[in-house]
Amino acid sequence: MKSLLIVCDGMGDRLTDGKTPLEAAKTPNMDKFAKKGITGIMDTVRTGIRPGSDTAHLSLFGYDPFRVYTGRGPFEAAGVGLELKRGDVALRCNFATLKNGKVIDRRAGRDEYGLKELTREVSKIKFRDTEIKFKKCAGHRAVLILRGKGLSSRVTDTDPETLNVPPARSRSIDGRPESRKTAAILNEFTRKTEEILSEHVINKRRKLPANVILCRGAGTKPELESFEERYGMNAACISATALIKGVCNSIGMKVIDVKGATGHVDSDISKKAKTAINALKKYDFVFLHIKGTDEASHDGDFNSKKEMIERIDREVIGPILEKVKDTTIVLTADHSTPISIRQHSADPVPIAILGDVRTDQVDKFTERECSKGGLNRICGIDLMHIILDLSDRAELFGA
Amino acid sequence: MKSLLIVCDGMGDRLTDGKTPLEAAKTPNMDKFAKKGITGIMDTVRTGIRPGSDTAHLSLFGYDPFRVYTGRGPFEAAGVGLELKRGDVALRCNFATLKNGKVIDRRAGRDEYGLKELTREVSKIKFRDTEIKFKKCAGHRAVLILRGKGLSSRVTDTDPETLNVPPARSRSIDGRPESRKTAAILNEFTRKTEEILSEHVINKRRKLPANVILCRGAGTKPELESFEERYGMNAACISATALIKGVCNSIGMKVIDVKGATGHVDSDISKKAKTAINALKKYDFVFLHIKGTDEASHDGDFNSKKEMIERIDREVIGPILEKVKDTTIVLTADHSTPISIRQHSADPVPIAILGDVRTDQVDKFTERECSKGGLNRICGIDLMHIILDLSDRAELFGA
Repeated sequence: MKSLLIVCDGMGDRLTDGKTPLEAAKTPNMDKFAKKGITGIMDTVRTGIRPGSDTAHLSLFGYDPFRVYTGRGPFEAAGVGLELKRGDVALRCNFATLKNGKVIDRRAGRDEYGLKELTREVSKIKFRDTEIKFKKCAGHRAVLILRGKGLSSRVTDTDPETLNVPPARSRSIDGRPESRKTAAILNEFTRKTEEILSEHVINKRRKLPANVILCRGAGTKPELESFEERYGMNAACISATALIKGVCNSIGMKVIDVKGATGHVDSDISKKAKTAINALKKYDFVFLHIKGTDEASHDGDFNSKKEMIERIDREVIGPILEKVKDTTIVLTADHSTPISIRQHSADPVPIAILGDVRTDQVDKFTERECSKGGLNRICGIDLMHIILDLSDRAELFGA
Repeated sequence: MKSLLIVCDGMGDRLTDGKTPLEAAKTPNMDKFAKKGITGIMDTVRTGIRPGSDTAHLSLFGYDPFRVYTGRGPFEAAGVGLELKRGDVALRCNFATLKNGKVIDRRAGRDEYGLKELTREVSKIKFRDTEIKFKKCAGHRAVLILRGKGLSSRVTDTDPETLNVPPARSRSIDGRPESRKTAAILNEFTRKTEEILSEHVINKRRKLPANVILCRGAGTKPELESFEERYGMNAACISATALIKGVCNSIGMKVIDVKGATGHVDSDISKKAKTAINALKKYDFVFLHIKGTDEASHDGDFNSKKEMIERIDREVIGPILEKVKDTTIVLTADHSTPISIRQHSADPVPIAILGDVRTDQVDKFTERECSKGGLNRICGIDLMHIILDLSDRAELFGA
């Protein structure tokens, strides 16, 4: 049997005026899914741990993030097709705006004008025995790779993640020579980007100058067994988010790009659903990721999240229920992103599984209804085993 | 307080025409058990892991199978009273039938005629620096022990577990000299059994010749602390299954044999129940194992499983409810064996505990009702701690 895993990013929530967005939304298809399947709640990483999207997805795919995760950088790099070598340190970067030495916009106004040219300038930065690779990604985003001897990812970010302060000084976390060296290079990198970008002609023409690069999430190449080797299933990923594509890429999934898939609330999710349904012909395991729910959550926009959920119900779950047969289908989220706090939380996510399952009496796909379901409360790291078992692909442990 | 653990092998199931065998069966005594006790569901090994009966029982007795389990061989050996030494490799074997070099019956027709004589012949096989012990068990089953220097259990089976193929060649799993040597011995053993048995006069008289020995489940002597040392309770096991008796034997439980207990659906389970009730006078902890439910499941026979459950309800649970007082009693299964797939699955099993417990509103002992119970979803490895706690025998951790 084949398997389809549908993850709506940040879909779980807390109460706003007594209801979660899932409870407020009209979701006849998700409710049918819950009714015909078995439901529960799930701690994607571990009870009480606030998951990132990267650590949550690693866990959902069965890779223990406490063992394999060093930082988001390597997954961002993999998401934009940058190959890491062993010993490289990768970081996620932002073009940002400094005024009088202080960060006044961490995203340089989300304005892409001229960033390609500025990327070329930043790429010319040189260090004595450390090579850099710098690649622009979508919008104001970029990835930095440091390559050389004696580097370490055990360093703090230069992105202060707050405004009206200078870029943060990177520091060694473990006090070892490798991390001290890496922190020094990052601080020097910050200074050099400031120097090069401040005077650049492009920045005279921008509303907000992109006059510094801020870095975060240092990590080294994770040594991950491929998904296919581990589970004996070839797998495809349908996602518009670089970080998630990077996670999938790192475990050898085929990343299928969909035109019109943006990762925002305006994404062509209908086309993503069609692509997923189609991919099930060729792949044993298809992973469909929808980001808009998380975006609306980070904006604190209850109605936008509710409407995104209704669109997913109509444009994704409806067609999948209609067309996908003889497949173990999982509907869940990677974490909760409550509207009230606008950031990821550790609240468990609802989950429903369709297939050769023991059904329960839950007939609504919401956080609170699913908590009464037949799965009870499960852990994300165990999900792949459950999927393999239900799809008749699990190995017997013992005799 | 004393404790009684009742395990109905493979009793958990999925839905067949909307019901599990437990749901279809009339089980007034089990339902009374659930009503008077606390219920839940349990992953005997770990969520999503398909347990063997051996790994599941180790886990239920509190021994982590991920740490202690190397293969079924040593437990089969212990189940028939063969003592293993450190360094020995034990394997479970079948007398099987070859035709034109291919396996046409993995159990030689389940026909015992002449197997004692053939066992004597196989026992004469010699290797240069490795001693063998070969012992016939029930039916077509046997155990092989390899004793000598530099052996390893990290080898694959010679039993192909399928028909119309030659015996499998044993291979080293880890590529080390010890496992390569062991695999070579096993392959030579297969060849020699074929040579010796093919021409034997006994086989002229059998319907299906027993002309080869197939081996599987190589393992070394597990280093297991005794149950009594670990928990301060002397313990007895009542089971008709060699593998389970072997597990109990390996942790120092007294194995009580019951005449008429067969491990099949025809077993005298009434007598087993009486023996268990009686054993509670002498032992602090009594384990009662009933195999018939699993046998019916492997045969894919829904009605036979349902009837076996009804017999257990009437002949085992009824008398126990009536006669056993002041005892923590647990009713559960070691794993699910769904009728639909005829093999073990990772679906959690129902569990009910009688004693000084917080009761819940569940009044039917079924998979789906128990999933609403007060225990929620627990792990098999934690069961002994729960039993000790409820029996007022647990140590305080902390102050």
